[in-house]
Order: sequence, then C-alpha cells, then structure tokens
Amino acid sequence: MTLNSALQQLIDDHAAGHALAQAFYADPGVFSLDRETILDESWHLAGHVSRLPRPGDYFLFNLLGEEIIINRGSDDGLYAHYNVCRHRGSRVCLEREGRKSSFVCPYHAWTYNLDGSLRAARLMDAGFNPQEYGLQPCRLRVLNGLMFVSLAADSEEFDENAGHFRKYLDFHGIEDAKIAHRLELPTDANWKLVVENFIECYHCIPSHPEYCSVHSELKLLAAGAGIGSGPEDACRAYEAEHKAWLERVEALGHPCDEGDFGNGAGMVRMPIKPGYLTESQDGQPVASLMGRFEEYDGGVTVIAFNYMNYMLASNDHAALLRFTPVSELKTEVEATWLVDGKAEAGVDYDPERVSWVWDVTLKQDAVITENNQAGVLSAAYRPGPYSGQEMMNRKFIEWYLEKLAQRAD
Amino acid sequence: MTLNSALQQLIDDHAAGHALAQAFYADPGVFSLDRETILDESWHLAGHVSRLPRPGDYFLFNLLGEEIIINRGSDDGLYAHYNVCRHRGSRVCLEREGRKSSFVCPYHAWTYNLDGSLRAARLMDAGFNPQEYGLQPCRLRVLNGLMFVSLAADSEEFDENAGHFRKYLDFHGIEDAKIAHRLELPTDANWKLVVENFIECYHCIPSHPEYCSVHSELKLLAAGAGIGSGPEDACRAYEAEHKAWLERVEALGHPCDEGDFGNGAGMVRMPIKPGYLTESQDGQPVASLMGRFEEYDGGVTVIAFNYMNYMLASNDHAALLRFTPVSELKTEVEATWLVDGKAEAGVDYDPERVSWVWDVTLKQDAVITENNQAGVLSAAYRPGPYSGQEMMNRKFIEWYLEKLAQRAD
Amino acid sequence: MTLNSALQQLIDDHAAGHALAQAFYADPGVFSLDRETILDESWHLAGHVSRLPRPGDYFLFNLLGEEIIINRGSDDGLYAHYNVCRHRGSRVCLEREGRKSSFVCPYHAWTYNLDGSLRAARLMDAGFNPQEYGLQPCRLRVLNGLMFVSLAADSEEFDENAGHFRKYLDFHGIEDAKIAHRLELPTDANWKLVVENFIECYHCIPSHPEYCSVHSELKLLAAGAGIGSGPEDACRAYEAEHKAWLERVEALGHPCDEGDFGNGAGMVRMPIKPGYLTESQDGQPVASLMGRFEEYDGGVTVIAFNYMNYMLASNDHAALLRFTPVSELKTEVEATWLVDGKAEAGVDYDPERVSWVWDVTLKQDAVITENNQAGVLSAAYRPGPYSGQEMMNRKFIEWYLEKLAQRAD
Repeated sequence: MTLNSALQQLIDDHAAGHALAQAFYADPGVFSLDRETILDESWHLAGHVSRLPRPGDYFLFNLLGEEIIINRGSDDGLYAHYNVCRHRGSRVCLEREGRKSSFVCPYHAWTYNLDGSLRAARLMDAGFNPQEYGLQPCRLRVLNGLMFVSLAADSEEFDENAGHFRKYLDFHGIEDAKIAHRLELPTDANWKLVVENFIECYHCIPSHPEYCSVHSELKLLAAGAGIGSGPEDACRAYEAEHKAWLERVEALGHPCDEGDFGNGAGMVRMPIKPGYLTESQDGQPVASLMGRFEEYDGGVTVIAFNYMNYMLASNDHAALLRFTPVSELKTEVEATWLVDGKAEAGVDYDPERVSWVWDVTLKQDAVITENNQAGVLSAAYRPGPYSGQEMMNRKFIEWYLEKLAQRAD
Repeated sequence: MTLNSALQQLIDDHAAGHALAQAFYADPGVFSLDRETILDESWHLAGHVSRLPRPGDYFLFNLLGEEIIINRGSDDGLYAHYNVCRHRGSRVCLEREGRKSSFVCPYHAWTYNLDGSLRAARLMDAGFNPQEYGLQPCRLRVLNGLMFVSLAADSEEFDENAGHFRKYLDFHGIEDAKIAHRLELPTDANWKLVVENFIECYHCIPSHPEYCSVHSELKLLAAGAGIGSGPEDACRAYEAEHKAWLERVEALGHPCDEGDFGNGAGMVRMPIKPGYLTESQDGQPVASLMGRFEEYDGGVTVIAFNYMNYMLASNDHAALLRFTPVSELKTEVEATWLVDGKAEAGVDYDPERVSWVWDVTLKQDAVITENNQAGVLSAAYRPGPYSGQEMMNRKFIEWYLEKLAQRAD
Repeated sequence: MTLNSALQQLIDDHAAGHALAQAFYADPGVFSLDRETILDESWHLAGHVSRLPRPGDYFLFNLLGEEIIINRGSDDGLYAHYNVCRHRGSRVCLEREGRKSSFVCPYHAWTYNLDGSLRAARLMDAGFNPQEYGLQPCRLRVLNGLMFVSLAADSEEFDENAGHFRKYLDFHGIEDAKIAHRLELPTDANWKLVVENFIECYHCIPSHPEYCSVHSELKLLAAGAGIGSGPEDACRAYEAEHKAWLERVEALGHPCDEGDFGNGAGMVRMPIKPGYLTESQDGQPVASLMGRFEEYDGGVTVIAFNYMNYMLASNDHAALLRFTPVSELKTEVEATWLVDGKAEAGVDYDPERVSWVWDVTLKQDAVITENNQAGVLSAAYRPGPYSGQEMMNRKFIEWYLEKLAQRAD
C-alpha cells in the first residue's frame, strides 16, 4: 500500500464531527505530509519587533526543527536566516538571543554581515566568490510590528489578509507596542492537539477556573473560543449581552468588524464580562491605554492570523500566542504580552498583572494537551464526537483533511 | 524475505538446550509476535484486591504499554478499563493510584461511573447516546483475591487452572489476606530474560547469598527454582530431606499436591530448610499464621500461574511476583507481600522482616538481568548451553519456540 | 533505489574540494558502510600499556558500540575480549576498570582465566567442552607500548607501517613511558567531523587562542595541522623558520624523517615556535627528557597511525589522541599524556602543566564539533568549499569517497 492509498483510506475512514484517528496526531509520515501541505507554506508568527530594538539584536526561532536567526540589521531592517554556516555547516549563533555587530561563525570565523551576506572568509581559493555564500535566508514579513517567518510560503496570501488585520493592529497601536513579558512552553504534543485545545472552550469550565472567573458565563458557552465556537442555543442566550456591549462600542466609535478569511484566519471583537474593562484578574486596568483607545470599551479583539497564531488584545494590553510545530510530538507554545511602547514597567504596568490570565491558562493547557497526547497514543484510543462547544474543531478538522486530500489525489 | 520466513529461519537455527538468539531478546518485530502469540492472550496478575479496599479505590496497571485503570466500583465489584477518554482521548486518571467517586476526565469533564459507563457529557448533540461511550473495558478475573487482567484472552484457560490453584489459595487464606509491602522494579530487559532469571537457581549461589542462607543447600541444587529445575543426581541427593519434610506435612494434614498444567502453570510445595519455619532471614515467624495453618510445617508453596506470575507462600506470609512485559526491552517487576487480613502492622508483623528475602533477591535480579540484556545486545553474543540447573529454561524455550512456530506456519 | 545506487548518486553528486553532504555525516546506513569499508577493519589505538601495570589489570574499551575488555594476563601478556559471557550473554565486567585474578561472570559465576579461556563452569552436562567457551577474542597488537584493537583487521597493514612508526616511538622512549594524565570527551558528532576538525588548522586562530600562543604564527598558517595542511604561499613563507630548526636538529643528530604511508598514516617532525623547548604554556620543560633525547630540540613529532589515531610528542612528553567511532552521531575522544616511565609526579612533572595545551584545545574542539554536527543536521546545510588551510580535508574526503565507491561498485 502506498503512502497515498494508506492516507486516502485514513481520510475515507474519518467519521464527520469526530476527532482524528491516532495516525494524524502521532505518525511521522503524516507530519511530513502536514509540512508539505500546510506547515512549510504557512507564515508563522515569530514575535514582536520590540524584541529587537537595536541593530545586531537577534534571537533564535525554532521552526519545524530548524533554528532561524531573526535579527535587526545595521540598516535597521529585519532579517531571518538559517543558523547554519555556509562553509562547513556549523551553528553560527550559539546563544538563544543577544546582540552582535556581525555574525562570526565560532568554527573558522567566516563573518556574515547583519543582512546575512558574507563579509569575510580568510584564505579561500582565488575563484571563491563571497557573494555566493551568504547565510541562507528565510522568508520574513513584518506587519505592524509583528514578524512572520516561513520556510516556503509565497507572499500573496500574506498580503491578502494583511489589509484586514491592519485595521485592528492599527487601532490597538501594535506597531508601537513593547514586550511586557514572554512565556515559553515546549509541549510534548502534536500541533493539531495544541490547536484544537485552543479553539474550543468546552474545557474552560472544568479546566480553567481562573479564565472563567474573568469571562462572562453566557459568553463562555456561546463564544468562549470566539464567535461560532459554541452551539446555536447558547448563542441566542448570549445575544442580548453582546448587543448591549456593541452599542457602547459604537457609541465610542471603536471598530467592531468581523471576518472569516479562510484557512483559520479571521477576526472578531467581543466583550469580556459585564463590568470588566480589560482581561485582568479583577477587570481593572493593568497598563496605559494602547493605540487609539481613549476610553475602555471592555472588549477583547481576537485576530487569528491562521490556526497556529493569534492576538488577543484588550484596550490596555495584548497577548500574542503562537503554537509552532517542531516535530510530530513536539510543539513550541509561546505567549508574548504587549503594552504601550511608552509605558514603563513598575510605573505604568506590572508584568505579572498584565500576564496573569493567559499565563495561568496556558500552563494549564500545556498539561491538558500532553495528557491528551498520551491517551491518543494508546491502542485503545477511538476518536469521539465533538460537542456543541467544539464547532471550531469540526471546522478545523474538515479544513485539515481537505488540505491533505488534495495532496493524496 | 518475509517476517515468517525470517522467523522460521531463526527457529530452525535454534540449537536445542541453548539460550535464544539475540533477535528473540531484542527485536521489536519479535516482540510484536510475542504479543500476538502469547502476551495479549495471557492473564496477567495485577495484584491483590486488598489494594482496593473501598469503592472508588483505583490504581493504574502498566500492561504491554497500556495504562489500565483497575478499581473497585460502588457495587463493590472490581473493574478494569483503559485509561483513555472516549471523547478526545485524554488520560482520565493522572495519578498512579487514589480514590474517586467517579472518573472525571480532566479535559472536558466527561464523567464515568466507577463501572466505566458514561454518566454525563455536557452539551453533546441530541443524537448522542452515552451508553455507547463507556470507558473501554479490559478483561478482568478475580481468583481468591488475586486480580488478573488480559487484553485479549478468553476465560476458558483461566477457569481450567483456577480449580487447581484454588486448593492452595484457599488453604493459605489468600482471599482474606492484606498487603504488607509492595516493591516495583522497572527493569530494562526483555520479559524472557526476566522469566529465565527467575526459573533457574544456577545463579543463586554466585548472586544471592542472602537467599541461599535461608534455603537448604541440597534443595538449592536440586530444586532451587522448583521441582525439576535441577539435575537428576542433585534430585536424588535431596530426596531424603524432602521425604522427611513430607512426612511431617502429612502428619499435620496439610496439602502437598503437585501439578504441571502446561504453559508454565503449575504448583508444588517444598521445605525451606531444616529448622526454618518460614522464608525469613532467621527462619522464625514474621507474622500470624494464615488461612488454615494452625502449626508451622516449614514449607513454601509455589504457584506458577504462568511463566510471568507467581505466588511463593510460607505459612505466615506470601509473596506475589509479576514480570509484566512493557516493550521489547522493558519489563515491570513487582512484588506484593501478603499477610493475614486481620494482622496489624507493628503488632503482628514487621513489613521489613516479612519482605526481607525477596526484597534483597529481586533487587539483585534486576541488576543481573539488565547486565544480561546489555551483553545480549552485543554483536559478539552467542547463545550458550544451559546447565543441569537450568532445566526449566530448556523447557521454557522449547515451549516459547513452539508457540512462535505455530504463528510462523 | 538500492542502497548501492543511492550511495553511488551521493558520491557522484559530491563537488570536489567541498565538505560532504549531510547523509555522510548523519545517516545510520552510511555509518554501516563506514564500518564495512573502513572502521571494522581499522586498527584502533586503545591506549598505553602502562595503564595495565600488573596481571589482572583491565579496562573497558568502547569501540563501535562494543565493550572490549583489555587486560594484562598472568603471563604478563595483553589480551582483548568482548565483554560478553559465553553462557547466557551477561556483561562479565561491570566496572569500567579495575584488577581481577580471573573474570567471574556476575550471573552464574562462569570463570574465565585472564587469557579469556574458560576455567570453570559448574554443573554443565557431561559433553560440555570448556575449551569451546572462552571469551570471544578481539584482535590486539602492541607497538612500543601502544595497544591497537580491531574487530576485523588482518595484521598485514599493521606490520607494514609498524617499521616506520617504530623509529620515532623508539627515539621518544614510548615503550618505557607512563601515563601522566587521561581525558575522555564523549562527543555527539560523526567520526568524520571529529577527524576533519583535527586535520585542519583553519580554525586555530578563531577557536584556539591558547594553542596559537604556543605555536609559531607562520607555521600555523603553513602547517598547523601538519606538513601539507596549509596553502603553498604560506609554506614558502615558513620555509626559513623550518630550515633553521632542521639544522639544529641535524646538528644534534635527532631524527627528522617524514613519510606518508597512505590511508591517513604518516609522520613528520616540526618546530614548535622559536624559543619554545616543548609544547607547554611557556615553552619551558614540563618533565624529564624522554627516550634518547639528551637535549631539547624544540620539535614536536607527529605520528598519524591512521585518520583516527595520533601521537604528538615533544621531547619531554607525548599526547596520544584517539577519535573512536561509537555510532553515526557519537565519537569517543580520548587523550593520554605520557611522560618518562621513571619520572615521578609532583617531583619530575606536574600533570596539569604536561597536559595544558591539548586539554584546553580538545575541550574547545568538542564544543566546536558538536555545533558543527548540529548545523549539518539542518535541512539548510549545504557543503561549502574548503579553504587553503584545509588541504588535508580535501585529501581525507577524496580518500573516504574512494573507499566507499569501491564498496558501491
């Protein structure tokens, strides 16, 4: 049986409205297909530019098993290159982040400019052309201060959605934001289990008491993981609450467009909870208002750049979340909390208060997801049916299988 | 070359009276065959019911790579289920043992009754039938307080031998016993190396000075690992000692039946050592007499439930031993020491004295077996001939190869 | 595609003067070929006989995944055997080094004489012939106190080169030397990356400031990793310095033959640095003169026994270096520093001063090589061109591919 026919069988065997079979969450061969069909050609959120304030600042981004150097150049531009010397293949940067005036390979001192071009290589033969030996570039795009990297994507899709996202990114002042806190959670689970955990709020009540204390109960049922993530009757029950908030938002002249742009991309604004100004433990402000907000409207803006990358923005802070696949059983989860670029830690904001809700929630999710993966690896695992609060999972799985089916054809 | 023809070659190449070739002790493919032909269809001793005194008590049993929840139900019955939620596959129990009033999946709170049936699943579609979504059961049989679990066995063989075993289990009062001590020894070795270590006493003198100090020297040579485990001349030398003990046993009216029931199952009684009442460091009592014993007869009762599970019972305590395969290079070794159910720790028995002989011996065997496995993995390993004291190993290997040959046909 | 055709393709794709493609540095299948074509049939330096001064002294040598017991026998001879009992395959020696009057298997006490023959096995059948069950020997050859072991080599090649090497080994008194210090550096890298690191000095200036401080700058460029390791113009620049030293050597009547014996084997003498008597931090003596040296000539003698084993001898000490392959991504690096056998630690030499240059240099190389391997494992790795100072690498790679090509034919 060829890979294609085995895959086609697995796809044919899928029961609509159910979780995927074990192979999709565990098999290295399926992960290779995931790469070919989806992951290599995705734009992966790598962070906010304020992580690289000065020329020479860099950090290593771990994407699909590759180490990518992302750095600011002497021209103040941003660059992404594979962390592999063009001479004999050594790692060029050994620390995970830092500042360099050039990238000097620790082996033979081949020296690369901050734009990745080869500046100097001692004692090479006469015919050696340094221009042929720059670091291998990765695709990098920056949108309002958010850096996206891809191993193989073209820029078309990126540009298509950028216009939509920019409206909210502008209003929230994301370009001028700065990092208040970062959290890395390497997670032993397939990327699809991590994504599925994020796009449903069926588990919120049992698993996330802190998160639930901050959010309206009616909303959690109807739209805990975004509009459309809950069942219809819950949506109807929640309508009035949502409408009341919408009126306030419109009165303030704040934007509240919604959109579903396909491939997991979309955006929406929602109220947090009656009486809550921001997504903090007590609903009270945790930092200066950002961007064009002059008054709290109690809303949270959700942008899904794709299934793996999100921005959750209150009026005074924002959280970037990324679920970056590493291998079939490893995913890197990272949260980056942003506040206004002019805010001062200890004066205008307390990083712990800014990050509290998602810090506690993401740590719970890491445990949940690893226990999910452990059970899925059992021979006794059988995909069960999704609940009414797992509408997004149904959609995600359908989208995923369609992508794979195109490849199997 | 197909698996079958490669396997047939390995079987044909086996030299009678010698250890197995490397592949049988190391190859993942052979381990799969071991599962198909033997392990999946075996009844594996999982422990004594006194580990689960109250409704809701449970522990996780690690069998062939699977986590099995074994628990007592509200109806006081015993249950075994795979630790995998029927919704999205999460582990349901995260701790290795404890007490629960129901099994609530930590992910979405699907709630299972103690009999494994699904009690509640929030927000499922109208068509959802909870009766179809109980935890997946494992086969479980209880014999005089001993719990046996199987992934695939039918009950026929179990019932066939039960009658034989019951005679001794009854007399020793195993059903009313309680656990005095437990020892787990995860061992990095193939299950057949662990079994082979246990069924011969050729290594006792070099490796187990403590064990040898407790047992008659003549007996160790003739029957250190049970009647038939030593050479004929040693058996003859030991005859008189055995006969003297038998007379005493018969005078007391204690049972002393022997039996070989095939597939490694059998039972026998033997004296410990002249002057020794029980299998303790000094031969003196270590607990209250169990079952129907009213006087010490200095014997030890050995039941082999199969090649992987044993009971070694003195008059005042018993040790359950299990060698449970996990993967081709991992086996879980566990000892459970039982005493009379009414005995009180610190008053009627001291757990350390009860467990001394086999605690020290099994720890030595774990080291021995891992060093055996390490050498067997060498390209220089060549199966050597068994000694006169490894009669049981010859028999075990013949039985094993015959089982596999049936599959290869 | 068969292994041979895939391999042939990889060989055909190789660009002359460039590093190897990823597969050669990482693939388990290629490592198997490396074993068949080169490694199994090589003589691997295992150490100096003074590590085993008395009968019964032994150590375990880790070669290509196998544990080899190397020991001195009761007849004062040296022996090498696989550390695998001929009975059931247990490891026989459990400690990495020690002294034994016989090798007693810890399992069933099969007892081997120090020459590997089976002395005693209790209770074996009448037909058992102990002479058939000695430990399995490894090939062992001793040259002037240096022990070489092979899994499969014949002795012809060894004898052929021995005559050449002996001239320097004699003059340096290696046979009568003793060990001043030993350093083990298990390195997570393919053996070819470890070798390539050693045979070029292109990385010396960026990576080894300590090493460079001890060596003439002109020489480092021309012949830092031995005559022929640098570009022609550097060689010309260095000529005068070399010639001045040669005159002094000849005046003293010290030997200075050069030779390239193929397969990486060769020898040469070179000056250290004007004013330096020995390869020490300050160039001053660190031990008594060895062998037939009566006066310092400031030279270092380099013997390459093959690509993996070297001796670097000053007049008053010597360093044995071995890069012993374990698996495709693991290599054992070891340095053994020798001084005159009659020298006394603390009186005639200080082990730290003796070992300083190569201790610091090898530790740097271990880090360098592991970072090289990490980068080579990236999908972005592309073999780059060798510099003028990597002449030996070009030669090594050509030799290696030719060896493999013979196999692929």
